[in-house]
Amino acid sequence: MEMIKVSANSRTSAVAGAIAGVIREHKHAEVQAIGAGAVNQAVKALVLATGYLEGDGIHIVCVPHFVDAKIDDEKIVTAIKLVIEPR
Amino acid sequence: MEMIKVSANSRTSAVAGAIAGVIREHKHAEVQAIGAGAVNQAVKALVLATGYLEGDGIHIVCVPHFVDAKIDDEKIVTAIKLVIEPR
Repeated sequence: MEMIKVSANSRTSAVAGAIAGVIREHKHAEVQAIGAGAVNQAVKALVLATGYLEGDGIHIVCVPHFVDAKIDDEKIVTAIKLVIEPR
Repeated sequence: MEMIKVSANSRTSAVAGAIAGVIREHKHAEVQAIGAGAVNQAVKALVLATGYLEGDGIHIVCVPHFVDAKIDDEKIVTAIKLVIEPR
């Protein structure tokens, strides 16, 4: 399963669609965001995805984690990973 | 029960302690953040609170919502509300 990577410039509706699609298929999705702008877009996308999936009777919840992420194939930074699953 | 309000300048450990305390007492906590910096601090605090509460055997999950919030007792803006409960 792929990690959904979100940046500060990601479109929330596109990210939300990706979350909803992965949840429908795998019942588990992971979203990674580095930096405040990206975390904000990820959380907004999660609100939208929650609405999309409620229409299917799927109620999702999220658990956030810190993870190490590599940027530019080199530098290690702390990212936020949102683990999303049906309640 | 009070809403825990988070700003971009909030200390994550202080917010995490507040979340953990409210969850222990009420089994339900709500965190409000306006703007990317505040949402980022709120999510980081939630990661810390998750760790604090795991020590007590409490595993929390989060559902984010959009809410209208009033700033300066006047202007209405869209805020993120994180609803936090034991899984």
